[in-house]
Amino acid sequence: MGNLNYIFQKEIRLAAKPRGFHLVTDEVLQQIPELKKVSVGFLHIFIKHTSAGLTINENADPTVREDFESHFNEMVPEDQPYYRHTLEGSDDMPAHIKAAMLGFSLQIPITNGRLNLGTWQGIYLCEHRDHGGSRKLVLTLYGEAAQ
Amino acid sequence: MGNLNYIFQKEIRLAAKPRGFHLVTDEVLQQIPELKKVSVGFLHIFIKHTSAGLTINENADPTVREDFESHFNEMVPEDQPYYRHTLEGSDDMPAHIKAAMLGFSLQIPITNGRLNLGTWQGIYLCEHRDHGGSRKLVLTLYGEAAQ
Amino acid sequence: MGNLNYIFQKEIRLAAKPRGFHLVTDEVLQQIPELKKVSVGFLHIFIKHTSAGLTINENADPTVREDFESHFNEMVPEDQPYYRHTLEGSDDMPAHIKAAMLGFSLQIPITNGRLNLGTWQGIYLCEHRDHGGSRKLVLTLYGEAAQ
Repeated sequence: MGNLNYIFQKEIRLAAKPRGFHLVTDEVLQQIPELKKVSVGFLHIFIKHTSAGLTINENADPTVREDFESHFNEMVPEDQPYYRHTLEGSDDMPAHIKAAMLGFSLQIPITNGRLNLGTWQGIYLCEHRDHGGSRKLVLTLYGEAAQ
Repeated sequence: MGNLNYIFQKEIRLAAKPRGFHLVTDEVLQQIPELKKVSVGFLHIFIKHTSAGLTINENADPTVREDFESHFNEMVPEDQPYYRHTLEGSDDMPAHIKAAMLGFSLQIPITNGRLNLGTWQGIYLCEHRDHGGSRKLVLTLYGEAAQ
Repeated sequence: MGNLNYIFQKEIRLAAKPRGFHLVTDEVLQQIPELKKVSVGFLHIFIKHTSAGLTINENADPTVREDFESHFNEMVPEDQPYYRHTLEGSDDMPAHIKAAMLGFSLQIPITNGRLNLGTWQGIYLCEHRDHGGSRKLVLTLYGEAAQ
């Protein structure tokens, strides 16, 4: 049993990325060195946008990320006749739907000052716009402070 | 660095809504005035149902919500030949699947007594039943209490 | 208002399951008897894999789980021509996509030492591999300790 005595929050930005699924574990971790101060707890990552999402997936073979992009384009196609929100471009409404399917936050357990991810797990930024620009994240770290 | 010293939980109900995607940010916030007491932390929202979900999306143009409904109906159609759980109506099994795709909880960071949402983000109730009735939510607020 | 003074974490394994959606509420709860020590708080469940997910859904009629499997196989088919990550078998890439759509963690509120789930809600392990084997979960319990 531990004691919950630590919370720390900061906003960061990710560098702009092309449309697709991107492994960003290192880009996130470099901006939150405070993580090692938590012995047991969580890193919560929240994306402040509605057309890009966050998920976890395979951190090794880059074709996994390409297949994610191919399949999401198939499952949520552009230019469907029933779309009415079309003024912001063909990629916009599918981007909202894809992001909602993947989710806008991750909460990853911390154990002994490190993310307790599985061997093959990495953090993905799911960029669904053609020109999404830099994305803002709120990182919140909380749990028991390491002694 | 802050100290985690506050947790508060309550159950609320949302007014019954027709099938579709609904912006409920204000309806939720009106029932949790305690939010301003948290300087750094979270609002966690959990829906106690299996045929309605929660997500975050665009809070401005209502056609975004209409397009969500149209596309989810396309992606998870009613009356598929492989459905076996059909006794509760054509809308029931698709409602379970849609809700699982969107999720049953949200955890939104709080900064200085306010939800730290992006400019265009709002909270959506995703009502997938034709007559879902009033939906129950568990709200849990936690973090560092404002001084 | 309560005080956040308790956090407890453990890793568990679920017994290997065939491909499909499985109700695992009891299998999880049996491994975390500490839950009753929390008066107000959360159980956070994180799966350390990229081809199996976690969700919440109907805990009664088993055909709901069968229909989930049927529909996800329809929505994310095997052997699509655009898949490039194919070396690990036909079920592998769809498994990554399905798991990302459902999610890798659940955070369920605790009230008076019990999960505050709706009447019909249960915890699902979504096993998307044909032979996924035993799956590892990180359980983190936190909140106010019961007096």
